[in-house]
Amino acid sequence: MKPVCLVIGAGAGIGGNVGKRFAAGGYHAVLCRRSDEEGLQQLVAEIEAAGGSATGYLLNAVEQGSIEERVAAVEEEIGPVEVVIYNLGAQIGDRPLADTSYKAFEMGWQLATFGLFRTASAVCPKMEERGKGVILVTSATAAVRGNAGQHSHAAAMGGRRMLCQTLNAQFSRKGIHVVHVLIDGMVDAPDTLGKMLGPELFQDLRKQRGGEQDGLMLPEQMAETYFHVAHQHRSAWTHELDLRAFSDLAWWNH
Amino acid sequence: MKPVCLVIGAGAGIGGNVGKRFAAGGYHAVLCRRSDEEGLQQLVAEIEAAGGSATGYLLNAVEQGSIEERVAAVEEEIGPVEVVIYNLGAQIGDRPLADTSYKAFEMGWQLATFGLFRTASAVCPKMEERGKGVILVTSATAAVRGNAGQHSHAAAMGGRRMLCQTLNAQFSRKGIHVVHVLIDGMVDAPDTLGKMLGPELFQDLRKQRGGEQDGLMLPEQMAETYFHVAHQHRSAWTHELDLRAFSDLAWWNH
Amino acid sequence: MKPVCLVIGAGAGIGGNVGKRFAAGGYHAVLCRRSDEEGLQQLVAEIEAAGGSATGYLLNAVEQGSIEERVAAVEEEIGPVEVVIYNLGAQIGDRPLADTSYKAFEMGWQLATFGLFRTASAVCPKMEERGKGVILVTSATAAVRGNAGQHSHAAAMGGRRMLCQTLNAQFSRKGIHVVHVLIDGMVDAPDTLGKMLGPELFQDLRKQRGGEQDGLMLPEQMAETYFHVAHQHRSAWTHELDLRAFSDLAWWNH
Amino acid sequence: MKPVCLVIGAGAGIGGNVGKRFAAGGYHAVLCRRSDEEGLQQLVAEIEAAGGSATGYLLNAVEQGSIEERVAAVEEEIGPVEVVIYNLGAQIGDRPLADTSYKAFEMGWQLATFGLFRTASAVCPKMEERGKGVILVTSATAAVRGNAGQHSHAAAMGGRRMLCQTLNAQFSRKGIHVVHVLIDGMVDAPDTLGKMLGPELFQDLRKQRGGEQDGLMLPEQMAETYFHVAHQHRSAWTHELDLRAFSDLAWWNH
Repeated sequence: MKPVCLVIGAGAGIGGNVGKRFAAGGYHAVLCRRSDEEGLQQLVAEIEAAGGSATGYLLNAVEQGSIEERVAAVEEEIGPVEVVIYNLGAQIGDRPLADTSYKAFEMGWQLATFGLFRTASAVCPKMEERGKGVILVTSATAAVRGNAGQHSHAAAMGGRRMLCQTLNAQFSRKGIHVVHVLIDGMVDAPDTLGKMLGPELFQDLRKQRGGEQDGLMLPEQMAETYFHVAHQHRSAWTHELDLRAFSDLAWWNH
Repeated sequence: MKPVCLVIGAGAGIGGNVGKRFAAGGYHAVLCRRSDEEGLQQLVAEIEAAGGSATGYLLNAVEQGSIEERVAAVEEEIGPVEVVIYNLGAQIGDRPLADTSYKAFEMGWQLATFGLFRTASAVCPKMEERGKGVILVTSATAAVRGNAGQHSHAAAMGGRRMLCQTLNAQFSRKGIHVVHVLIDGMVDAPDTLGKMLGPELFQDLRKQRGGEQDGLMLPEQMAETYFHVAHQHRSAWTHELDLRAFSDLAWWNH
Repeated sequence: MKPVCLVIGAGAGIGGNVGKRFAAGGYHAVLCRRSDEEGLQQLVAEIEAAGGSATGYLLNAVEQGSIEERVAAVEEEIGPVEVVIYNLGAQIGDRPLADTSYKAFEMGWQLATFGLFRTASAVCPKMEERGKGVILVTSATAAVRGNAGQHSHAAAMGGRRMLCQTLNAQFSRKGIHVVHVLIDGMVDAPDTLGKMLGPELFQDLRKQRGGEQDGLMLPEQMAETYFHVAHQHRSAWTHELDLRAFSDLAWWNH
Repeated sequence: MKPVCLVIGAGAGIGGNVGKRFAAGGYHAVLCRRSDEEGLQQLVAEIEAAGGSATGYLLNAVEQGSIEERVAAVEEEIGPVEVVIYNLGAQIGDRPLADTSYKAFEMGWQLATFGLFRTASAVCPKMEERGKGVILVTSATAAVRGNAGQHSHAAAMGGRRMLCQTLNAQFSRKGIHVVHVLIDGMVDAPDTLGKMLGPELFQDLRKQRGGEQDGLMLPEQMAETYFHVAHQHRSAWTHELDLRAFSDLAWWNH
């Protein structure tokens, strides 16, 4: 039986590509995303066509019990979750305070902070019992610095980062490897950046900075590092690392 | 008419003492706390006995609209809020993940993160219009590092810190001074530390580390620094500073 | 006998103004700078005209034994050094690696890092014996992030910051208050910014951003905060704080 | 012709093991260390026995011109340096300020900061011309927090970290990948930890925390991560990551 890699937030960007990478590396990928059943099934099909195995679920992470029930069902029906990729983003673009509703602020927290807490609450007891497990958390620049218009996003991601540290503090010695992956740049992802910019701007940006220029981060390449850290020997674990394109400045330089 | 200093979280520790300091410095102190009407009125009486002026309100900050209505009423009935002291804590002691309920996790966010967002949403438009204002935010070590058992507190305070940075990024140039005060140690405060430890342990600790030993942070002394940074000239503003007792190690050393 | 405030790097910007502030606050200011005897004597004269007391010395800090001998002489001839303001800068402007000579790199370290180590080695034993003392260290954005062209400056200031933390870790509980003051912006100082930009650019900048605009940091205002933290009660000490103009972005936002 | 991986500081711990890993991965390893010709030749022999290729040199890094000449000679005689592993440590154990000589303080800087600057000055122009190169810098907890007794080490490592950031800011877009690897724990290395503790304590520690317990970091495992980051696609580069044993607390938790 293959170990399970559960991806929460398996769109066409980081989540989907990390799922593919783990499937290629011998895992059964369980792919969860909020919408787009068609895209989800296509992802499963691609993984299977490449000789891997995967299952896809639509999952509304902010719905009460949704993550918890999915974890329980996967553990019972598919197998032990060895790796979780927590990949829900909460970027809503730059909005001044006056344009950031209470609802938008709370939604950021639901997706970026509370959802991770619920996920950890569901998987950590099982991983602790088994003495091993990996939780890879995709994070953002906003986790380490607040910028204008990022009220919701930065508060949510700052909370996410501190939560990763508390999880690590409690569970590292129990064999659970928690990793905070700080994505410091724009990812070539149609579902997130693409939606935020709209199709035209996104294609323009890809022309200018994508492909050979590598100015957009390529999710299939990022996936290699996710896979690597998930397989570090336990005497040499990484808790935090950043990822950005060579052509970009680090967040502390702009 | 005196300028108003609004203290949200005006217990017998930092909040109350900062309120006193601003009252002594010419402000009308508006003191809000969740419970203990008697303690609240005593604080008001002490300020008045010392020649200052103050008003006290019981305020349940997590109640919908509570902060917003209080701000509106103060602005209308008392005067423009020039300084806000956001002093709600969210420390619930060290609890393993399994003992941290969803409710406790959410409560941390309500008090430490969302409450500040709501407060800022209420006061910033007024301060921006007037071209000046100060928001002093009491924060904790947990805002910069997660420690075992601090799942709720660290996530909440990490979010608070990033929110302070986003507020600063938007409002500093509008004349609003946002300060993140990182309290890195135990405060000699009966309402918070006292309640967490219980009366006996708290008195023992005070004997060992309080008073002359200065091993507990004295809130009336901390208040001096709150008052100072609130009055820095706008060409030399502090956004973040730490406070700890001389006898204590910095958080990065233990 | 007045307590002594020793300023190492007492030009017309931060150092001189902090010296004035401490003199006004009851200290005998000992002002040391590398050159400009005339400017130095003028500073002493201004302090005396305002009713304070001061002594000025030319001091080449990179000269072997220079700081050590000055400290010893001051202690013997004037009185115990209660406060040290270590204010030597090491900014040489942005230079690509190829234009940063070994000598320039070493000079940065000499001024920013090693000079502070030598100063601390000279004053800490005396302060420890007396059970009190304050070391205020002026630092820069480069202490927390390296930027293009800042090879020498950032390495030197990064070392300075870590040195402040080690000094604090050893000496805080002995009653020595070490403060790392992170200056995150351009200071209205003819000796440093003025020299770096040249007189014309400097005057242009002052017209655009100085005076009423407060876009340049006013050293006489910064001095108020230096004086405040030097007099915090030992139960509530600040180790690190930042200072910037309200009109400027924080370093993490640009 | 194989690409060259130049290791400065190739002892029996991280440096030697990283050298082996790169040799196994198709590089010609150039191994430099200060002393122990025998150990050096044994390392070369091991690499060759495993089918790799390597050359060893004794190199006194603090000697004027030593690094520069070695880089030039390697480029001329062996081939283009594609990867540099800068692995010189500067830990001298905990020493109070009074026991930290000026010489010890300077030596820390020479090894940890200036040596890297000299190395970068030698290799960056060549790497920039070729449009690619990797500089992996082994660093330590002391780069991010000063602790009691770490006066020399923390100042040196703090400078090293900021230097890595300035190098990255200038050279990343030129195709040079600079990585700051923060080693946050004790490494199972006879040359460094072994020498610091002495043979008996070191063996005791290995019994308690080594091998199966994985409480000491295993350098051959750390080498896997060095190799991985050196081969990240340029659209997804890591600049900073930490490494510690699962059984250890992160530096911010103790």
